[in-house]
Amino acid sequence: MGKNFIVGQSGGPTAVINASLAGVVSSALDICSDGAKIYGMRHGIQGFADGDIVELGPRLSDPAASELLKHTPAAALGSCRRRLPDPQKQPDVFEALFARLRQLDIGYFFYIGGNDSMDTIQKLSDYAQTVDSVIRFIGIPKTIDNDLALTDHTPGYGSAARYIACVMKELIADSLVYEEKRVTLVEIMGRNAGWLAGAAALSAGTDCPGPDLLYLPETPFDIDDFVARVEALQTKRKSVVVALSEGIKLEDGRYVCELSASDEEADVFGHRQLSGAAATLCSILKQRLGAKCRAIELSTMQRCAAHISSQTDVDEAFAAGKAGVEAAVAGKTGCMIVLTRDPDVPYRFGCSAADIHGIANAEKTVPLEWIDTEHATVTPQFIEYALPLIGGKLPDHFVL
Amino acid sequence: MGKNFIVGQSGGPTAVINASLAGVVSSALDICSDGAKIYGMRHGIQGFADGDIVELGPRLSDPAASELLKHTPAAALGSCRRRLPDPQKQPDVFEALFARLRQLDIGYFFYIGGNDSMDTIQKLSDYAQTVDSVIRFIGIPKTIDNDLALTDHTPGYGSAARYIACVMKELIADSLVYEEKRVTLVEIMGRNAGWLAGAAALSAGTDCPGPDLLYLPETPFDIDDFVARVEALQTKRKSVVVALSEGIKLEDGRYVCELSASDEEADVFGHRQLSGAAATLCSILKQRLGAKCRAIELSTMQRCAAHISSQTDVDEAFAAGKAGVEAAVAGKTGCMIVLTRDPDVPYRFGCSAADIHGIANAEKTVPLEWIDTEHATVTPQFIEYALPLIGGKLPDHFVL
Repeated sequence: MGKNFIVGQSGGPTAVINASLAGVVSSALDICSDGAKIYGMRHGIQGFADGDIVELGPRLSDPAASELLKHTPAAALGSCRRRLPDPQKQPDVFEALFARLRQLDIGYFFYIGGNDSMDTIQKLSDYAQTVDSVIRFIGIPKTIDNDLALTDHTPGYGSAARYIACVMKELIADSLVYEEKRVTLVEIMGRNAGWLAGAAALSAGTDCPGPDLLYLPETPFDIDDFVARVEALQTKRKSVVVALSEGIKLEDGRYVCELSASDEEADVFGHRQLSGAAATLCSILKQRLGAKCRAIELSTMQRCAAHISSQTDVDEAFAAGKAGVEAAVAGKTGCMIVLTRDPDVPYRFGCSAADIHGIANAEKTVPLEWIDTEHATVTPQFIEYALPLIGGKLPDHFVL
Repeated sequence: MGKNFIVGQSGGPTAVINASLAGVVSSALDICSDGAKIYGMRHGIQGFADGDIVELGPRLSDPAASELLKHTPAAALGSCRRRLPDPQKQPDVFEALFARLRQLDIGYFFYIGGNDSMDTIQKLSDYAQTVDSVIRFIGIPKTIDNDLALTDHTPGYGSAARYIACVMKELIADSLVYEEKRVTLVEIMGRNAGWLAGAAALSAGTDCPGPDLLYLPETPFDIDDFVARVEALQTKRKSVVVALSEGIKLEDGRYVCELSASDEEADVFGHRQLSGAAATLCSILKQRLGAKCRAIELSTMQRCAAHISSQTDVDEAFAAGKAGVEAAVAGKTGCMIVLTRDPDVPYRFGCSAADIHGIANAEKTVPLEWIDTEHATVTPQFIEYALPLIGGKLPDHFVL
């Protein structure tokens, strides 16, 4: 009988992290017809350490169940944010984890997650070498932030980008109905990388003008310049729509969202209120221009909107899970599956395995040459990169 | 040649207000084959007063264009919030409006909107009688708030309710992934009526527990009781999800969202920040329970999410527009189209015309017997009422 499989999910949920889980289990089921077991760890490495294990094979051998899992948001196994310690400093943690791996007769370990989760794969696979373990450790990429190195993009990004583009298009249509001056500020996730905020530009087309201004965290945000741009736009049109990353920062490094978080600003219950970047800019525009403003945060919706997931993203997340199993069975370890892009059009992707040491704890931001600071938008290269990932056209709108 | 038609849109946008516009135009096109024109007023009665008129017939005679319009959010003609004055006090306003109606040879006037818009229909039709005008004035209901009198429900509600139920289900799935105590507060539109907040309960099913607590504005909100309930729930589960209306009020009538809007609470730019009800309750929970909380506002998304509109709602909005034209041509005026519900199951709706005087400026709230204050939720009667309106099942989720 072959060795057993185990898979976990970690970090923030996405619309397609479960599609990768389905891919791992589906591929493992194909391979382990010899009776090997497929375990899931609940709440990632934390649950594994605590012995919170579930057998997945019987639950997911029905293709209908697997298909449903592919379209279920959040993380079916639960997630965690635990980082493993340095194995040299706390070897006992790793000894305990490997004892449990041996106890379950694990041969293949899969962890679906982002930067921090890849750190877990790196530490486990590095430690395995020091103790001559043959267990294979494979990372499956997952993050709406699209900030993982070496992979063309990450599963989770396409669906979040589709949600953002679609909702931005609807919000812009909404913003255009009144004959009054108004600024709409839409805040999008992405603390250090502007991939998600940039997706707001995908709303533009013959039936939507797209956002008037678009700010990514990769370039310094200048408040005076921003106010001047809004003022200039307001002389031309009633409605001005601004899309911005939650992580936009001033030249001096301060986050815009922190500007309103002074200690004096406590509410009547004595608790400090943290506003977002959009709410802060709303205040500034009201004060400087007397402008009517509304701040909208796409908030948690953008990471769990499975109802409008990108089919391309679902397919890729599933394929990444399958490729992880294939790589492990082929003998690879200390790797993360990366998505590659065929240089030709139409868009086609592939999967391969890359050394985890180039990925864990690295962060890929939007290339500066893809950001048009002159016009406060992204360049056509950004659009060309992101558009195939959102899985087809957005719903069309009628324009009178 | 027959008299001409004119149609306008007013008040807040919805996902299906354009479906009603398509219904009016489609029905008028069928009738006015004798060469009568179909005009649209841009930005409602405000644009009409200013002469901002567009001819709709040529643009919408193509069925594909009409179909696209049915699924386009916001308001294709633009909207306004203008209330007409008292005709006795400012007859000149009405003289000018009727002069323009005569100039365009209008026989049929349609206004798609909510309470305030029905006030416009009431004033125009009442005034018409005083000047022996035979122009027919018909209101077509529209509001996500579902607060219009005499109609079983309003076009716009079903789609917003579907969005809320679907997103609530996704947010609950998201909230369950971590093994840490957290309270998620989701703020839903509806200042005085809890129809939209109640729709959060439609998320519940075999694959979703639904919100743990649900607060509507119809019953007084007790902060101490709320904190005690959250504390009690936290002893049973890690994640507590609360859905609430933006308009929840204390026993003394103060809005919860106003509790944090003291003058002292200005941000660093000197501008007062208005928090929502959810953000205010977040602060209270942090202070009293030390709870980790997040506040999420469904904001403008819930009124323009055409990408997940209820097909039932689209069909009904279109039918209401058609019924308006049929009523006008049959000689009715001073009416609003109401949706009626067949008492039998399965759900079937019909349209009829009701006297505008029972509708304009009235507000229909959720019956108190449909609110379970003991368990902070809505009763099965509410679910039975609202469920058929959201146009079919929500996306299923896999649960491990």
